[in-house]
Amino acid sequence: MNRRSVPKATLGRLPLYLHYLKTLPDEYCATISAAAIARGLSLGEVQVRKDLSAVSGAGKPKIGYERAELIAAIELCLGYNKVTNAVLIGAGKLGRALLDYEGFEDFGVKVIAGFDCDENVWQASKASKPVLPISDLKAYCDENDVKIGIITVGKASAQQVCDTLVTCGITAIWNFAPCALDVPPTVLFKQENLALSLAHLNNQLS
Amino acid sequence: MNRRSVPKATLGRLPLYLHYLKTLPDEYCATISAAAIARGLSLGEVQVRKDLSAVSGAGKPKIGYERAELIAAIELCLGYNKVTNAVLIGAGKLGRALLDYEGFEDFGVKVIAGFDCDENVWQASKASKPVLPISDLKAYCDENDVKIGIITVGKASAQQVCDTLVTCGITAIWNFAPCALDVPPTVLFKQENLALSLAHLNNQLS
Repeated sequence: MNRRSVPKATLGRLPLYLHYLKTLPDEYCATISAAAIARGLSLGEVQVRKDLSAVSGAGKPKIGYERAELIAAIELCLGYNKVTNAVLIGAGKLGRALLDYEGFEDFGVKVIAGFDCDENVWQASKASKPVLPISDLKAYCDENDVKIGIITVGKASAQQVCDTLVTCGITAIWNFAPCALDVPPTVLFKQENLALSLAHLNNQLS
Repeated sequence: MNRRSVPKATLGRLPLYLHYLKTLPDEYCATISAAAIARGLSLGEVQVRKDLSAVSGAGKPKIGYERAELIAAIELCLGYNKVTNAVLIGAGKLGRALLDYEGFEDFGVKVIAGFDCDENVWQASKASKPVLPISDLKAYCDENDVKIGIITVGKASAQQVCDTLVTCGITAIWNFAPCALDVPPTVLFKQENLALSLAHLNNQLS
């Protein structure tokens, strides 16, 4: 399976399927159809078929999916077999909120520490995640095999932070600063736009 | 034009087009082609054509778009003709970060106040937005014609806050609490999942 092929919307529903499959009573038969999953979760059957086929191929006609196999395929796709470590730079309000956000681990990612250049914020978060001086970043990333860097500083220092993360061997960057960044082509880059969901809602208000 | 028909990805690019069109030198001719806009912004021409046609219909063959008309159509679509007021409930770290987030106004939305039940947080945000007792919510929404409610409280109180917002006449809700909510069919509802972008990035790391 090519993991790159899973669409974001599908990915968002995978924890839902996983939870449903895992909480079915054990006496439930070992196979389950896409139609039954769709009914159980009040989703459209076409959508469920499409989602599951992106993860695990098609079910068998008249039988459906082997429940245990499907659980394993979803877990593999969500990265449960290997948790990816992430750090964030910028321990302001947004940074600290993300540091303690519950829900990342549902997707196989662990935000393990925050970094900041301001020594006044070098104190552990509410959930006891460390916030460290930015000068420790390189050593920390090497020691903890950190793959993802989250940028939660302001516009003015975002590019500099981004360059530092690249130097530290980060392979994917998630940027909350409202500005475009230059990133080498070898590094995955995702621009977050918090305003966009709100804009979409507003647009629908007509 | 039916505003509901504008896809979210298109919406996200509209501020970019708007900025480009507005900053073209005045001596630039009064019409501009989709191809020229695509070159100017390093976007694909097919995408630009699709985006603009969702907002303003097709350009004229060999002429393109009237620049002034296109600017007006984009501004209408983004809601610049009428700013929508929003409030948020829950002035914790995430709430306060959103209250001061720059960028919502690019999309015709103004987050004008925060509300909380904890009197210890009833102090204005860094950007001087008021944080008020939740008991003032109804009167405030009536006075300020508030249409959108943003939920940034924890799971445990999200449904109760949602019900209160509905009672206050809110017509759209944007929920950051990581849980499903019961909302009447007359109220627009958008569930935010902060983890999902990170999950998608992680999935692509393969």
